[in-house]
Amino acid sequence: MILPTTNYNPQFDVTRASHVVLTVADISKSLEFYQEVIGLILTERDGKTAYLRGLEEDSHHSLTLELADSTGPQCSQLGFRVRDDEHIERAAHFFENAGLALSWVEVPHQRRTLRVRDPQGVPLEFCSGMTVQLRLHSRVDRHRGGCALRFDHTQVAVPDVRVAAEFYASFGFMISDFSYTPKGDMTSAFMHRKDNPHDIVFGSRRGPRLHHLAYVAEAQNLFRAGDVAASLGMARRVEFGPSRHGQDHAPFIYFRDPDGHRVELLGHPIQIMHFESEPIGRDVTDRAQFAPWGQLAPQEWLAEASTFPGEEVSEPVVPRTW
Amino acid sequence: MILPTTNYNPQFDVTRASHVVLTVADISKSLEFYQEVIGLILTERDGKTAYLRGLEEDSHHSLTLELADSTGPQCSQLGFRVRDDEHIERAAHFFENAGLALSWVEVPHQRRTLRVRDPQGVPLEFCSGMTVQLRLHSRVDRHRGGCALRFDHTQVAVPDVRVAAEFYASFGFMISDFSYTPKGDMTSAFMHRKDNPHDIVFGSRRGPRLHHLAYVAEAQNLFRAGDVAASLGMARRVEFGPSRHGQDHAPFIYFRDPDGHRVELLGHPIQIMHFESEPIGRDVTDRAQFAPWGQLAPQEWLAEASTFPGEEVSEPVVPRTW
Amino acid sequence: MILPTTNYNPQFDVTRASHVVLTVADISKSLEFYQEVIGLILTERDGKTAYLRGLEEDSHHSLTLELADSTGPQCSQLGFRVRDDEHIERAAHFFENAGLALSWVEVPHQRRTLRVRDPQGVPLEFCSGMTVQLRLHSRVDRHRGGCALRFDHTQVAVPDVRVAAEFYASFGFMISDFSYTPKGDMTSAFMHRKDNPHDIVFGSRRGPRLHHLAYVAEAQNLFRAGDVAASLGMARRVEFGPSRHGQDHAPFIYFRDPDGHRVELLGHPIQIMHFESEPIGRDVTDRAQFAPWGQLAPQEWLAEASTFPGEEVSEPVVPRTW
Amino acid sequence: MILPTTNYNPQFDVTRASHVVLTVADISKSLEFYQEVIGLILTERDGKTAYLRGLEEDSHHSLTLELADSTGPQCSQLGFRVRDDEHIERAAHFFENAGLALSWVEVPHQRRTLRVRDPQGVPLEFCSGMTVQLRLHSRVDRHRGGCALRFDHTQVAVPDVRVAAEFYASFGFMISDFSYTPKGDMTSAFMHRKDNPHDIVFGSRRGPRLHHLAYVAEAQNLFRAGDVAASLGMARRVEFGPSRHGQDHAPFIYFRDPDGHRVELLGHPIQIMHFESEPIGRDVTDRAQFAPWGQLAPQEWLAEASTFPGEEVSEPVVPRTW
Repeated sequence: MILPTTNYNPQFDVTRASHVVLTVADISKSLEFYQEVIGLILTERDGKTAYLRGLEEDSHHSLTLELADSTGPQCSQLGFRVRDDEHIERAAHFFENAGLALSWVEVPHQRRTLRVRDPQGVPLEFCSGMTVQLRLHSRVDRHRGGCALRFDHTQVAVPDVRVAAEFYASFGFMISDFSYTPKGDMTSAFMHRKDNPHDIVFGSRRGPRLHHLAYVAEAQNLFRAGDVAASLGMARRVEFGPSRHGQDHAPFIYFRDPDGHRVELLGHPIQIMHFESEPIGRDVTDRAQFAPWGQLAPQEWLAEASTFPGEEVSEPVVPRTW
Repeated sequence: MILPTTNYNPQFDVTRASHVVLTVADISKSLEFYQEVIGLILTERDGKTAYLRGLEEDSHHSLTLELADSTGPQCSQLGFRVRDDEHIERAAHFFENAGLALSWVEVPHQRRTLRVRDPQGVPLEFCSGMTVQLRLHSRVDRHRGGCALRFDHTQVAVPDVRVAAEFYASFGFMISDFSYTPKGDMTSAFMHRKDNPHDIVFGSRRGPRLHHLAYVAEAQNLFRAGDVAASLGMARRVEFGPSRHGQDHAPFIYFRDPDGHRVELLGHPIQIMHFESEPIGRDVTDRAQFAPWGQLAPQEWLAEASTFPGEEVSEPVVPRTW
Repeated sequence: MILPTTNYNPQFDVTRASHVVLTVADISKSLEFYQEVIGLILTERDGKTAYLRGLEEDSHHSLTLELADSTGPQCSQLGFRVRDDEHIERAAHFFENAGLALSWVEVPHQRRTLRVRDPQGVPLEFCSGMTVQLRLHSRVDRHRGGCALRFDHTQVAVPDVRVAAEFYASFGFMISDFSYTPKGDMTSAFMHRKDNPHDIVFGSRRGPRLHHLAYVAEAQNLFRAGDVAASLGMARRVEFGPSRHGQDHAPFIYFRDPDGHRVELLGHPIQIMHFESEPIGRDVTDRAQFAPWGQLAPQEWLAEASTFPGEEVSEPVVPRTW
Repeated sequence: MILPTTNYNPQFDVTRASHVVLTVADISKSLEFYQEVIGLILTERDGKTAYLRGLEEDSHHSLTLELADSTGPQCSQLGFRVRDDEHIERAAHFFENAGLALSWVEVPHQRRTLRVRDPQGVPLEFCSGMTVQLRLHSRVDRHRGGCALRFDHTQVAVPDVRVAAEFYASFGFMISDFSYTPKGDMTSAFMHRKDNPHDIVFGSRRGPRLHHLAYVAEAQNLFRAGDVAASLGMARRVEFGPSRHGQDHAPFIYFRDPDGHRVELLGHPIQIMHFESEPIGRDVTDRAQFAPWGQLAPQEWLAEASTFPGEEVSEPVVPRTW
């Protein structure tokens, strides 16, 4: 299968996926979930917004919760960091040349920030810096629940994975893993800039929708997160796992937050360096590649996801026959 | 609910559940599973028999595998230890007085051994001692898979849990946990002699059948056992878990061995002393009591079990309506 | 070496070591240590007394902290459970016949309680029951620091280990492990009633003094307890470990509480049943038997211990030449 | 304190520290240690050379063992990866312009490889690629001992840390952490190219010498590595730990291999991105910054290290007064 070509000398340097903005119906209720079960630290809260980060993160926030308006809970932004202010300018040029409408916005605690929607409508936010906080990974007395260490990636359901992969490859994202149908249609693409397999993952499903956001945690704390959820009367928020991924082999557990947004805790991913490894392709019909052992994903994990504001959801272009 | 009365001064002293005899179709294939995935140590193997034990066990065997005859794989014996030779004599008197047919048998590596079937046909073997081996818990270089430490208990499906509970209580078993229907029918009983909640557990199901045998392991090794199973091409032997029990709250994972016998690895159980704690009853319709969080048991976990030689299987007396 | 003979049909049934009473200079300061670092639950606190228990314990207390009087912090009592009220009476007869002075006392939340000093002056308290509390092992949201699960044993420094071993063997304690000098003098004895290697351990040192009390915890939480201590400014309370014991091979970490009382967290001990295993002897000069790997014990671990009220401390009868 | 200035647009792109070459007196003996205790995979062995890699590594080797010549065991090379063949050419230009003698060498399984000594005599090897192997992190049946996942960094003792830091900063290394004397002399520098705190660490000691090489492992496997070492009669190879680092807060354990080369296993380091975080400086006399809790480093950890072929060892320029 011919893969999209990564531009190894991209016009601007995206360093990593860095944050997500979710709208929620009740910030206090969401905070209880994210602080006690997932284990995030609340950096700051004002009237309608709460900013959270993982225990080892020194950036001000990797998850922003905003009080939902009348349209209900959605995912507002997927955030990425670029190298510096020069590169955010270069990013703007790049997206303008690509014919995409962009806007510059003021976001508290972020340096220069621009927003753009990708070709399938995924709302992206790039910024050149954030206020720095003290890392709290050594304050073990404040660790709670799953002890989420750092934001890692998002998974996005899109109608056309190839279109997504080509777009992100055009500004430097590499594919670490992908899957395909026996006919040769691409059904998923794991794409990364930082030194592990995933900053953003695309799956062929009804979309665009946010399937999940993922935080890295110590493997032993995935189980603990489930225990704490049950202790606090949130047992039903555990959706799937703990079990073992087939792709990068990390252990995982998936939760649904009080609004239904899906959050993954995953063990430490393997290191994948740019320029060293080739993408690994897997036949989507070979189940063992995706789940080496353990339970099947429940139906809601396959079907449900968070929408993006103002974006219509379309059926995938590759019919789901597997 | 009125519980069966434990005889606190029983005529003989059963110290613990100690071993299980399973018949299998292919001893080598079973050994690969029990040694590499479960992590048992092979103490000895002769023509048609293999003797295994957990890493910290100094008794010669806690699991005996025998080549199956034409009737196919079954569970031949549930073994218990009594205090000494005097107590095995007292046990014989007790069962004779109870009108049960017993037989004295010679079993390699066991001291005096008698066999008797309980009122519902479960084949029991009591012995007064075993050859002692070196414990291998400190030989970490030899630890494999789930690193099973010691045999803990069996769970037996019986048509009438109350009949079972009354019988075992009559020679000193205490109930740690039990469940009941809203009508007050007993649906499970966890019974113990040693200082944790279970030597033998009865569940109201088609029986008599052996639902599973259980070994204690470090919590972190439950997940590892699943990983090793998958690495060795035995991914489908993982049946259920890892997840968390509701009764004594230990983490668990269930496997099916190559013949379909079910084996549980569970984390360290809590300590329950005789004379200190009251039995804890739970309404069987209250799901949260049984599975605080995580996936539901798959259908085969609910339905399938190993039979005992020569015993007809009957429907439970308490209709399963929950 | 000829070992003291255990009375296998003792006149009364001690079921386990159950609690310790320590006097402390500042109850609030001690509580911060025991709750946040060790992870005990505060069952109840009144003016000058605090009652704590481990996460899986349903007995009201396994550690009592009392405000010290003018003589300073000491260990007031080592507590044991006997089977029931009948057995506490039998215990009284036994100790009277042994020529030991005993006293009946009223202790809040304990049933009938008698006190006696052993032949070397160790203050013992036997009781026939305690108020029962809810176990909190499943309330993972309340787990802190080392997440101590249950009280396990004490280690006592005595001038004459053989005298101690003979006394406790006379009412049913068995020796699981012991050590001896090349000349054949006994230098330590691990003695137990419950199904693991130790309820009370004797070491040949200046005594009588309490060397440490020990709680069982998940192995992974030993390291976490050290981390939490450091996070809370109590780094110097970590005295020794985490490392690995040679005797029963459990991992351990030792802390000193704010008054200098020593507390061990140890991983789950192996199961040792009465009537099954022989005592294991080790030459005290063979270091590998005691510490399979890792750092040596620091000098203060070897030298310091808590005194008992009113007891003079004597040199050990076996000269320490190893 | 004024830090060396990192060149953020370096002339060539070093992507990470990638490998180390050690000479050893007995390859078979070393292999037993590295395979069974550290848990490395043997990729290939020929007459006088063995190539090993961590479980998740797809590069052919991260540790090369070569049979020592008459000068005895030493560290021959510290290896780094550059982006591609174009960048290895650029590297050559850079070092030539810096007035350093370089040599192109043929190394099995490596693409273009050049060697150069840094200003204090540390032998560096840069290569533009390696043969790719299958990652084995999912073959849990083959995991042994500490289950080392991937090579992470080296620590090098040098007489002048500032000279080292300035040199590496000149081609793009950033400082994540450093320490200084109260007088303002730099005593250590943690420098990195990849997304964690360290590819190469410099400490002010007699040098140049290799203090240690480090592999990442799951935290729980550090303790296991010590256990396996003891099981295999290599208990004395455990030099220090397990304990907790103060700098990046990872848990660690140090071993000495059969020739005395020091190997660290450390838990997953935190993520530190270029362009995001400022270097963190610590006063070298503030012990709590370096060891939040636990034992002190033993004397041999402070004093001993591996030499580099042909390099004289000099005293540090900053007198060690702390």
